[in-house]
Amino acid sequence: MTAKNVVILAAGQGTRMKSKLTKVLHPICGRPIVAHVVDQVKQLAPQRIITIIGHDADKVKAVLGDQTEYAYQKEQLGTGHGVLQAESLLSACDGITLVANGDAPLFTARTFKHLFAYHQQQDAVATVLTATAPNPTGYGRIVRDLDGNVTKIVEQKDATQEEAAIDEVNTGVYCFNNKALFAALHKVTNNNAQGEYYLTDVIEILKREGAKIAAYRMHSFAESMNVNTRQALAEATRLMQARINAMHMDNGVTLIDPTNTYIDIDVKIGADTVIEPAVYLKGQTVIGEDCHIGSFSTITDSTLEDEVTVTSSTLENAIMRKHSNIGPNSHLRPKADIGEDVHIGNFCEIKNAQIGARTKVGHLSYVGDATLGTDVNVGCGTIFINYDGVKKNHADVGDHSFIGSDANIIAPVKIADHSFVAADTTVTEDVPYHAMAIGRARQTNKLDYWKKLPVADDPAWNE
Amino acid sequence: MTAKNVVILAAGQGTRMKSKLTKVLHPICGRPIVAHVVDQVKQLAPQRIITIIGHDADKVKAVLGDQTEYAYQKEQLGTGHGVLQAESLLSACDGITLVANGDAPLFTARTFKHLFAYHQQQDAVATVLTATAPNPTGYGRIVRDLDGNVTKIVEQKDATQEEAAIDEVNTGVYCFNNKALFAALHKVTNNNAQGEYYLTDVIEILKREGAKIAAYRMHSFAESMNVNTRQALAEATRLMQARINAMHMDNGVTLIDPTNTYIDIDVKIGADTVIEPAVYLKGQTVIGEDCHIGSFSTITDSTLEDEVTVTSSTLENAIMRKHSNIGPNSHLRPKADIGEDVHIGNFCEIKNAQIGARTKVGHLSYVGDATLGTDVNVGCGTIFINYDGVKKNHADVGDHSFIGSDANIIAPVKIADHSFVAADTTVTEDVPYHAMAIGRARQTNKLDYWKKLPVADDPAWNE
Amino acid sequence: MTAKNVVILAAGQGTRMKSKLTKVLHPICGRPIVAHVVDQVKQLAPQRIITIIGHDADKVKAVLGDQTEYAYQKEQLGTGHGVLQAESLLSACDGITLVANGDAPLFTARTFKHLFAYHQQQDAVATVLTATAPNPTGYGRIVRDLDGNVTKIVEQKDATQEEAAIDEVNTGVYCFNNKALFAALHKVTNNNAQGEYYLTDVIEILKREGAKIAAYRMHSFAESMNVNTRQALAEATRLMQARINAMHMDNGVTLIDPTNTYIDIDVKIGADTVIEPAVYLKGQTVIGEDCHIGSFSTITDSTLEDEVTVTSSTLENAIMRKHSNIGPNSHLRPKADIGEDVHIGNFCEIKNAQIGARTKVGHLSYVGDATLGTDVNVGCGTIFINYDGVKKNHADVGDHSFIGSDANIIAPVKIADHSFVAADTTVTEDVPYHAMAIGRARQTNKLDYWKKLPVADDPAWNE
Repeated sequence: MTAKNVVILAAGQGTRMKSKLTKVLHPICGRPIVAHVVDQVKQLAPQRIITIIGHDADKVKAVLGDQTEYAYQKEQLGTGHGVLQAESLLSACDGITLVANGDAPLFTARTFKHLFAYHQQQDAVATVLTATAPNPTGYGRIVRDLDGNVTKIVEQKDATQEEAAIDEVNTGVYCFNNKALFAALHKVTNNNAQGEYYLTDVIEILKREGAKIAAYRMHSFAESMNVNTRQALAEATRLMQARINAMHMDNGVTLIDPTNTYIDIDVKIGADTVIEPAVYLKGQTVIGEDCHIGSFSTITDSTLEDEVTVTSSTLENAIMRKHSNIGPNSHLRPKADIGEDVHIGNFCEIKNAQIGARTKVGHLSYVGDATLGTDVNVGCGTIFINYDGVKKNHADVGDHSFIGSDANIIAPVKIADHSFVAADTTVTEDVPYHAMAIGRARQTNKLDYWKKLPVADDPAWNE
Repeated sequence: MTAKNVVILAAGQGTRMKSKLTKVLHPICGRPIVAHVVDQVKQLAPQRIITIIGHDADKVKAVLGDQTEYAYQKEQLGTGHGVLQAESLLSACDGITLVANGDAPLFTARTFKHLFAYHQQQDAVATVLTATAPNPTGYGRIVRDLDGNVTKIVEQKDATQEEAAIDEVNTGVYCFNNKALFAALHKVTNNNAQGEYYLTDVIEILKREGAKIAAYRMHSFAESMNVNTRQALAEATRLMQARINAMHMDNGVTLIDPTNTYIDIDVKIGADTVIEPAVYLKGQTVIGEDCHIGSFSTITDSTLEDEVTVTSSTLENAIMRKHSNIGPNSHLRPKADIGEDVHIGNFCEIKNAQIGARTKVGHLSYVGDATLGTDVNVGCGTIFINYDGVKKNHADVGDHSFIGSDANIIAPVKIADHSFVAADTTVTEDVPYHAMAIGRARQTNKLDYWKKLPVADDPAWNE
Repeated sequence: MTAKNVVILAAGQGTRMKSKLTKVLHPICGRPIVAHVVDQVKQLAPQRIITIIGHDADKVKAVLGDQTEYAYQKEQLGTGHGVLQAESLLSACDGITLVANGDAPLFTARTFKHLFAYHQQQDAVATVLTATAPNPTGYGRIVRDLDGNVTKIVEQKDATQEEAAIDEVNTGVYCFNNKALFAALHKVTNNNAQGEYYLTDVIEILKREGAKIAAYRMHSFAESMNVNTRQALAEATRLMQARINAMHMDNGVTLIDPTNTYIDIDVKIGADTVIEPAVYLKGQTVIGEDCHIGSFSTITDSTLEDEVTVTSSTLENAIMRKHSNIGPNSHLRPKADIGEDVHIGNFCEIKNAQIGARTKVGHLSYVGDATLGTDVNVGCGTIFINYDGVKKNHADVGDHSFIGSDANIIAPVKIADHSFVAADTTVTEDVPYHAMAIGRARQTNKLDYWKKLPVADDPAWNE
């Protein structure tokens, strides 16, 4: 099999983005643009991937890591100049080289494979990846002779009226015989208005030398889009999201409104799970089967087992085990581990805590740095106080214990199995088995006390 | 008037849905698909409706109840075989029989009425309901002679190039002379690739026997869609939702973004109510006039009188009376009854409680199993404690009473009119008229105490 | 330069809106429809703007204030009659008069300027603003002669088949020689089916008198839409929102889904700020650079400095200073002033309070009518109690103080720098420097107490 190489052009800043961040690092569906490109080209199993970096080079390297090699393009002197930076790494290699753009996140490995296959089938020295543009204005047009062979690529400004009417356009992606590519790159000049070295010129140079130039016309024009503006970023995000959401629906997930459901590319969802509109699933989230994710929920890097229900809640780095439920308006923070059949109600925050099976935390509570057993009832307004101003301490609550409302559990402390904490009690010492901890002032009724209160001056109270 | 019968085909599983639940039970805008069909055909006032059930038969019966009769199709051997299961119930009947599909939720009674009328006007034995498909590939094409009479229905695979170019397609819905239908059904064979008995064959059989076959072309192709995949489910939901939302706008409701407003089919809304984007109204919710429903609210099976304001809140089985308001981020649970001019603020949960007129529950409170009078002020962080570990108890709070912040009201207990509860008091005994209940520890200031706290070891505190 | 006048027709009720509020006052993207029109025509620097008012006249005047003069149209007898109400204010003026419609919010000053320029360039007495309608049915058609001169405007009902096929339609906006306009208006009659005086008739009258009638065809048909129904209101809102959102994206703001981001027209946003889907920015909100506004947030009339993070929260009339963050599910109410690097966590409400730099209010707290210093730690469930039943009082908390969880701070009170409040303490007196305020009952463990609790009767506890 012919060896494959890939060069990804990712050095440009993208000034039309008006961003401090280089263009290719803007995220789409949870992944920077250039990482989408790398993810697809890796599926070709190339012998080498070289990413040409320039602006924010260190950040690009930090994102892509050792998935690719890098060549540094100090000055951005054009696409041809960009590819040339890979010369020391690539010029001695055999095989075919794909040149892809780091700002075109929608190209699929499938399209690249078709391009390679066509290139080989045509026995071409260079193959241009083309598409049919609904409105070709501004794109380089593919001029073919009567036999369908590519004769040239004409830029907008140089196009005759006849050429301007051509709707087959250059996507900026190419396959080359690797050695022919680098030989030709040295012949590219910057005698043009922009003073840049254009990769497109390689096609003309090779053609002039008699090489066979092919063009593979891909099916979807949309797939070829580059991201140069925030509007294009939004459009690419929409297309990528539609692709992701279609995949989940094909897997048996119900998305009530797929145009209003935001799912990052790495998220996994089981069949017969229902996602209501206005849900945002981020990062490495994994959701089981038969779950119900209600509107106005954001779930990040969390794992939900089967039959979990989330209602208008926010989860980060948390686990919800089988048939547990939460919400509305609760918040799982990192290392919240919610056991099977657990109920977390409204206005609750759980952080770095294990909640045992069938335990209930119903309302207005904060459980942090704690281990709760099974079948515990945590009353409304209970607070686990873990911070002493210097460090976080841990609390333990045993199985079948009953924590009254408005209790404060000051860690470190242990509350035994089958024990009780009375409402309004601040627990500072361990509570033994079958005991009830209580610590609150007794109620006194001060009769006719209203006369001593500010309302005493209110005429309405003195009628 | 000619009697009408309806047969609804609802026995198939719909394997492309990849669901444990049979296709026709997936909900659209708050109602299972097949229930939409029944709802429409009922408007024809047919003498009989027979639903052909198979997969999840008991669940389908549970959903549709006694709105229809049922015939059980043990094995799904094709649409013709499906209709034949109704024979014992229907074959002796006079009149016209409509055959509809339980997986096509968008057909309207209006379309069915036009179909019946056309069938009778044409004096036809069978009338096919047809539509114009933007892309007819895959559909059965309606072949007509020069006079416009139907000559046959050609399936995709059997279509000549000329026939394939026809854009009038079979929607799978028909009107038949009832007796002719069952007579012909017995002549249908399963000599085809799938080994199924096709209802379409009845048309050919009747045609061959010289019967008049008509075709009524409906206006909207979209209305004819079947739901076979989750993507089709989402599309049908979108179309149904657009229809519902248009109806509300026509009634004088402002939907700021109707593409981002989710309203179940049975919901009622008064004129001059404004619904912000990202609102979900479910079930049997009824909303009055001049209400304002803010973004990020979910309202289920609740009743809102006029001039109610809901801001980013969740309501279930609750009542909000005239000019009351709630939110953001509050939660009404079943049997919350919010009185006129009541203010429920943020992070409040109300359950099984009556709140009298003009009462305020401003912040971070839980009111459950309680009756509050009028003009009560419930302070921040107040908790009604109703659960003693075994049962729920009830609390009563009188008119014009003032509950201080962080109070706990342990039911059963009565707090009289014009009485007070001091902040941080746990009420366990009744509070009399004009009295103030207080029960809290007095504050002591321990001077220079910082040296005994963990921060004493913090170099920053010892500079 | 020729003087410009503007007449805005805003007297009609708009019965198809089915609203108690007159049509032109319905808001779009935070501004009433007619105010959009005034905002655009003001950019023409006209010598006079006259708004013709009728229904809800006082409300229209209250909205527009002294931006325009007003003429009152007692009875709505047609558009011609409407313009005639401006006669006493305008008829003596020189120059050109633009007649615009108060229910057409999308017209831009740019289009009006082109209309004026064309009118002058053509040396016309009247110029009709026209557009190309994808479906012209129902619109007045522009009939031109072979030279392109306007010969007449034909209403739908009067159009020949040939005229009906014309897709250039009247937008209802015109430029007139001012004196010619009023002279002609007196010749308009109400001899028509509706018995109304139509402004369109002025064109015919002037034409008959030999005046030059021009027509300027604008680029965008969508821009010309009138709002007569709630569906049109939603559509105009969609188009206006798309325009606003495109402007922000062009400025370097990332809108992850611009079709699901609601930004009022006066909102300002800095570059490299990211707005997640399902965000609603209202009123006079100003957002800095490098902010992150998470889904399910509503921000009204608030100012956010650079690097602020908002997660699923609600802000009203608040300030968040540089690099502060809030959420999820917190609420800033008017006069909340959140200092630099402050963290406001979940389920917190801040009202009329200054929060010093680096202070943390993490969970389930209410801070109202208070001034907090820098580096304060406010524990979970802390409540600032400001209301004594009659008035609101103020609390002060010094720098580096530490408020324990479940504390109540009863204002008026001062808590000194570097002081402490123990958990579960109700503070009623000032706390000195380096002291710790404590006031809570000590915990007692009642051994074997379960036998006295309701659970004692529960068989499960007696096994």
